[in-house]
Amino acid sequence: MLDEPIIQRLKEIVGAENIATETQDLICNSYDATQMEFLPDAVVYPGNAEEISRVLKLANGERIPVFPRGAGSGFSGGALPKGGGIVLVTTRLNRILRIDQENLLAEVEPGVVTEHFQQEVEKLGLFYPPDPASLKFSTLGGNVSENAGGPRAVKYGVTRDFVMGLEVVLPTGEIIRTGGETYKGVVGYDLTRLLVGSEGTLGVVTKIIFKLLPYPEAKKTMLTTFDSIDGAARAVSTIIGNKIIPTTLEFMDHATLQCVDRRFNLGLPAEARAVLLIEVDGDRELIEKQAAKIHEVIKPLGLVEFKVAKDAAESEALWKVRRLVSPSLRDVNPDKYNEDIVVPRSKVPDVIRRIEQIQQKYDIPIVNFGHAGDGNIHVNIMIDKAVPGMEEKAHGAIADVFRAALDLGGTMSGEHGVGLSKQPFIPLELSPAQIATMQAIKKALDPNNILNPGKMFPV
Amino acid sequence: MLDEPIIQRLKEIVGAENIATETQDLICNSYDATQMEFLPDAVVYPGNAEEISRVLKLANGERIPVFPRGAGSGFSGGALPKGGGIVLVTTRLNRILRIDQENLLAEVEPGVVTEHFQQEVEKLGLFYPPDPASLKFSTLGGNVSENAGGPRAVKYGVTRDFVMGLEVVLPTGEIIRTGGETYKGVVGYDLTRLLVGSEGTLGVVTKIIFKLLPYPEAKKTMLTTFDSIDGAARAVSTIIGNKIIPTTLEFMDHATLQCVDRRFNLGLPAEARAVLLIEVDGDRELIEKQAAKIHEVIKPLGLVEFKVAKDAAESEALWKVRRLVSPSLRDVNPDKYNEDIVVPRSKVPDVIRRIEQIQQKYDIPIVNFGHAGDGNIHVNIMIDKAVPGMEEKAHGAIADVFRAALDLGGTMSGEHGVGLSKQPFIPLELSPAQIATMQAIKKALDPNNILNPGKMFPV
Repeated sequence: MLDEPIIQRLKEIVGAENIATETQDLICNSYDATQMEFLPDAVVYPGNAEEISRVLKLANGERIPVFPRGAGSGFSGGALPKGGGIVLVTTRLNRILRIDQENLLAEVEPGVVTEHFQQEVEKLGLFYPPDPASLKFSTLGGNVSENAGGPRAVKYGVTRDFVMGLEVVLPTGEIIRTGGETYKGVVGYDLTRLLVGSEGTLGVVTKIIFKLLPYPEAKKTMLTTFDSIDGAARAVSTIIGNKIIPTTLEFMDHATLQCVDRRFNLGLPAEARAVLLIEVDGDRELIEKQAAKIHEVIKPLGLVEFKVAKDAAESEALWKVRRLVSPSLRDVNPDKYNEDIVVPRSKVPDVIRRIEQIQQKYDIPIVNFGHAGDGNIHVNIMIDKAVPGMEEKAHGAIADVFRAALDLGGTMSGEHGVGLSKQPFIPLELSPAQIATMQAIKKALDPNNILNPGKMFPV
Repeated sequence: MLDEPIIQRLKEIVGAENIATETQDLICNSYDATQMEFLPDAVVYPGNAEEISRVLKLANGERIPVFPRGAGSGFSGGALPKGGGIVLVTTRLNRILRIDQENLLAEVEPGVVTEHFQQEVEKLGLFYPPDPASLKFSTLGGNVSENAGGPRAVKYGVTRDFVMGLEVVLPTGEIIRTGGETYKGVVGYDLTRLLVGSEGTLGVVTKIIFKLLPYPEAKKTMLTTFDSIDGAARAVSTIIGNKIIPTTLEFMDHATLQCVDRRFNLGLPAEARAVLLIEVDGDRELIEKQAAKIHEVIKPLGLVEFKVAKDAAESEALWKVRRLVSPSLRDVNPDKYNEDIVVPRSKVPDVIRRIEQIQQKYDIPIVNFGHAGDGNIHVNIMIDKAVPGMEEKAHGAIADVFRAALDLGGTMSGEHGVGLSKQPFIPLELSPAQIATMQAIKKALDPNNILNPGKMFPV
């Protein structure tokens, strides 16, 4: 609970109409895409960096935890106010400040929705590649804080690779700039990339300078079906080994295909055990040549079917298979734990085999799909929480999935972050010295531990 | 001066044959590519991370400054032992530990010479793009610590974009891993990229995992000559605006061309005021098309001559113009200050005009060339130190050049780093709050300030 005088001071900072303390408003800001919920004491909607600075200075003086929040679409509880405090929502900072066509960059506020930004730059023939699945509602500030990825990361990289500079309010309320408008720049420590992916624990991003690219001339989509996981996995290495870096290399395992087929009747071949949705983009003639080459080199790998889209409508039809995955999963079981492990590309078949064993051990359905080009697999553990004991089984399975990824030289998360959901598992991946180093940085920037406290590190 | 017992303990750690205290050895490690010199008290050549850890623990206990050093080819004094202490040379850690062709990555030790690494991966059809001018002698550890760039950064990015993970000895002697073998990974803070470009002030890199690419199928080199700086600068934006991102876009101004021509008689057209050396790489047919397109779109911009290489020998001949720049400069004056400012691409003509004014103001020759695609211009202030007052003029000109770059939205350094040489100018670029944030991080990781102290920040 916040005292009335504190609420009063917050009202003075952000305006009475930009603070909420009624239960219904608190509930709206108590959850994200995980199944966790924590009620804040108050929600503030500041309008600019100066107001955010003043909120943080007040919070620092009074030792009140502050939890930055974008659209609340995160998959790891990174924005949830566990323990209570102030949720600081950045959605009013939602302007695209400028798009510089000559220097291929844009400056935006953190509350801009990802897809809206993409549409605006595309109108000018430009391209912002990062495409997290949540792009229709997630904010760019959230994308930066979580270092969001997406299918196009194989060729273009993740959010980090497009952030040139930031304006940030530090936990102490200081407003600083990091990086700048040039891609090269080596003066001082790389605070920009320290902040990207720091999950709102080191600062509140108030401006972002993004690098842009020219929009690719054309793209070509292929749906390729294999009679084994190994075939699909070898296809990934074979394509890249032939000097083709596709834009996307999306993978769906047998369980995923069964899910989608059961509900939407895809008419996939009976031998289908894995599907790769492949897209290439760039010069119109080059992608024709690449598509033909891809067909040629993957043919010997147990290829059952090769569909190539002739136009945008056919491309959309092929993507439908991938987009139907999420709505189909709930048919297996109503509740889902969605983890996003990563392994070195060549280890994808091994990790899928390990997950099959985990599935048998715990006797719960696990469905795998994701970004095979990066080795980034979304592992969906499907349970029914109403069934006694099933949630505990899921927790055991999740720990085993993380151990499998780490055993194979991978990581627990490629896109979703640690937040609250992976916090208990951190010691599996990071050594005490690594954790101590990160905590020392946190303490250096947030001496009173008021910004998104209790996240990421073991508590 | 180090006491004899300290020398004795260092000998026990690295072996008596791997420590040097004789004046001639100290002199060899007292300088770099700047014109500064500082004698260390001792030089150690450890053989592995464990020995480095023990050296740092000893140094911490005794509060002895330690200065990590690769090949000593840096351009900012980053490895120089100002104030004395121990120079820690990493050249004995010079193994390429593995090249993983399936996952397109390599693990190396920091003492591997950049060009040697490139040659080894190229034998396997792979590609490590970063190409600092010093690549024939610089080490990969130095490249990582300075975040080295090079001509190919336009298309491929800088060293930072290829570092996936590190093994680092922290100033306290702790050995940690950062990042890993997967390109995606969001567990914990991005210590990898905090360390890249930290100029040896936060840790000693002992292993590096690099991302690799498939080696491009072909490349095409063009030497394009313009009748004005503006024409050449507009050519850069026009090419990129036409969806072509060349591998390199190297720029030489009129003063540079005169220098080279005077010595090597290039036979450039009389109207030549600027040259762009352009290279594209990739699919054989695509680059033919791109070269034709480049010719078409830059023709209206005051193009005086367009030479395109038909084969590798002709390509080498065109590159010769660029390579002759450095040896030609000394004809202007014997001493050189080489700064590497960056401005947004569109501001290249403005900054060149400002530099012309600075040249007139101080009446000293300034020669500009560099990476126009990134807006990264190497500004060479040519003086004769024997002439009284000329060095002071150079210092004034350098400060003005930095101010011009910053006024235009740029940075003082795109590749060389701060080290000692840009330290006095840091407050021009970074705010007190930015500096305080960086110093807090330094203090968190190096509480006794023993690792490369007195660098980067104002002292």
